[in-house]
Amino acid sequence: MLLNGESSRTIIVDKDHVIRILDQTLLPFKVKWLLLSNFSSACHAIKAMQVRGAPAIGIVAAYGMALAAKENSQWASLVQAAERLKSTRPTAVNLAWAVDLQLSCMESVKYSERFQAAMQHAALLSEQDIETCSAIGDVGVEIIKDIAAVKNQSTVNILTHCNAGWLATVDWGTALAPIYKAQAQGIDVHVWVDETRPRNQGALLTTFELSEQGVKNTLICDNAGGHLMQQGLVDLCLVGSDRTTANGDVCNKIGTYLKALAAKENDVPFYVALPSSTVDWTLSNGDDIPIEVRDPSEILSINSAENNNIRASAISLPGVEAFNPAFDVTPGRYISGLITEKGVFEASTQGLANLKAYL
Amino acid sequence: MLLNGESSRTIIVDKDHVIRILDQTLLPFKVKWLLLSNFSSACHAIKAMQVRGAPAIGIVAAYGMALAAKENSQWASLVQAAERLKSTRPTAVNLAWAVDLQLSCMESVKYSERFQAAMQHAALLSEQDIETCSAIGDVGVEIIKDIAAVKNQSTVNILTHCNAGWLATVDWGTALAPIYKAQAQGIDVHVWVDETRPRNQGALLTTFELSEQGVKNTLICDNAGGHLMQQGLVDLCLVGSDRTTANGDVCNKIGTYLKALAAKENDVPFYVALPSSTVDWTLSNGDDIPIEVRDPSEILSINSAENNNIRASAISLPGVEAFNPAFDVTPGRYISGLITEKGVFEASTQGLANLKAYL
Repeated sequence: MLLNGESSRTIIVDKDHVIRILDQTLLPFKVKWLLLSNFSSACHAIKAMQVRGAPAIGIVAAYGMALAAKENSQWASLVQAAERLKSTRPTAVNLAWAVDLQLSCMESVKYSERFQAAMQHAALLSEQDIETCSAIGDVGVEIIKDIAAVKNQSTVNILTHCNAGWLATVDWGTALAPIYKAQAQGIDVHVWVDETRPRNQGALLTTFELSEQGVKNTLICDNAGGHLMQQGLVDLCLVGSDRTTANGDVCNKIGTYLKALAAKENDVPFYVALPSSTVDWTLSNGDDIPIEVRDPSEILSINSAENNNIRASAISLPGVEAFNPAFDVTPGRYISGLITEKGVFEASTQGLANLKAYL
Repeated sequence: MLLNGESSRTIIVDKDHVIRILDQTLLPFKVKWLLLSNFSSACHAIKAMQVRGAPAIGIVAAYGMALAAKENSQWASLVQAAERLKSTRPTAVNLAWAVDLQLSCMESVKYSERFQAAMQHAALLSEQDIETCSAIGDVGVEIIKDIAAVKNQSTVNILTHCNAGWLATVDWGTALAPIYKAQAQGIDVHVWVDETRPRNQGALLTTFELSEQGVKNTLICDNAGGHLMQQGLVDLCLVGSDRTTANGDVCNKIGTYLKALAAKENDVPFYVALPSSTVDWTLSNGDDIPIEVRDPSEILSINSAENNNIRASAISLPGVEAFNPAFDVTPGRYISGLITEKGVFEASTQGLANLKAYL
């Protein structure tokens, strides 16, 4: 990832164990690093969505468990911390995955070494995340390359929803990784960025990181994607996944399902990019995924910027009722394929079984 | 319609020929009547969307032609005025329809009587609009009644997109008319209101008028409708139409198409309510409808309210590119039926031919 032209990462550990993350609630208006100095600040960062995106949440949770061990490395206390961390965001499977990995890592270690062990293991997970995302990019770029070939190297238009770029991971991203790899290979790519109401991750984060990387992009309302596909203006949809079930159903940001329907209807390939760590092997299908319902205030007010000050303002009358489910489930039958670090797999029980065989 | 508990209309002509409309750019934060004192103010009201909704635009355009005649009733001047009015919004077929009707009405009349004749004819069109919308309500309420019967009179949940209520007409509305009629008949109705980005007509106008009428409603993001349908939380989709072609394709606010796809997929009835005047008999299908592309600033900034002051604030970084098509086309095959003042018709060439036979 490039930030202001410099190579960087979204989660950085300084030599003195200080953990820094990019505060995503201030982006793109302010680029500010947030210090996670204790366990509570890690929990808060996840809950308040200062960090978001399943893979990034996982890594912050891993460091969060290390911070918990720094404060109290007794087993009972760690188990309690694990529960608290897991409850911050119910949908992202990486959160529980990373927390449980850290518990296992610390279980076999002396009290006094638990913090150190957890920090080292979190750093390992972070490196693995980067490798995984880079591999997803290498796998996915082949799909873009094929489309570019069919289009005689004219611009490949890719629609994405929410933010599944490097801001959602430590580096590279998931859905955006193939795009960055395509750019690096000289393929002419342009991205239609869904605004992604209610939190506008597309408008705020995806346009920001694509522009930082120099990738052409155009912001659209979530309502527009179907029309663009009807008009032949989309060659490929590429989205991330917060949780994928064993039959290939994909839980992702609310509105993903609508785009998948439109893609199917208009013969636009619809691919989901995900690290295999986001597969929830315990769930046989998407109906079993608990869908996080977030605060209605996310719909009723909005952050805007003036003279670099960010402020929330009401965009509806007081007293308006709102309902704010944060995710939806796209059945596997609408998905052209799952792009993982191990290759492209069919979004079906068989496809997932094939993926599992590689792990 | 009820405004602050009092019976009212959205377009009112006072005894001294003063034309007043509710300024929809200030709603719901301020209820302000706007005086259309000359032809330019009528053009501006349509272009700036102080009035919006195909039927209401038609009536304001009719009064606009009268104001043009008041300023200069020479035929060449009227023809010029007609062109200027028609260019304010390209999609709404009622606009051209009303303007042409007014030209015909004035053609056979002496110069000195043209203003008077056009005012009278606009008043007639206004009354006809109210009758038409009321009839749409009477036709459409039967569909709601049938659903209520199947649900043993438990709440009927209706999803609507944009605003096709009385704020889009002179009174009653189109898509919301059946809902008001259902309420009057004691049927328990609840409306899921799509926010309707980028101009948020759902959040600002539809929640406002439903609440003024005492109809239960819940605001949702445009992204949420598919998920709600998957969950069985929507019994019926009811939307308006800006232009319907001779084969039953419906051009309506951007995002309508995505909801129609989700409705089809989840076996939710998807009805479009429209006055037959919004049918464009000259177009054989929706591919021929010119789609208005509006200013990107509608996406990049938003109106918010603080202490009753309305202000536009940036919700993305300066320099972000955006594309803002205002309408999309829903093919007739996704539409359960067209609710018109003459009855329910199939959204097909045959269905439209049947409707035409009634006109």
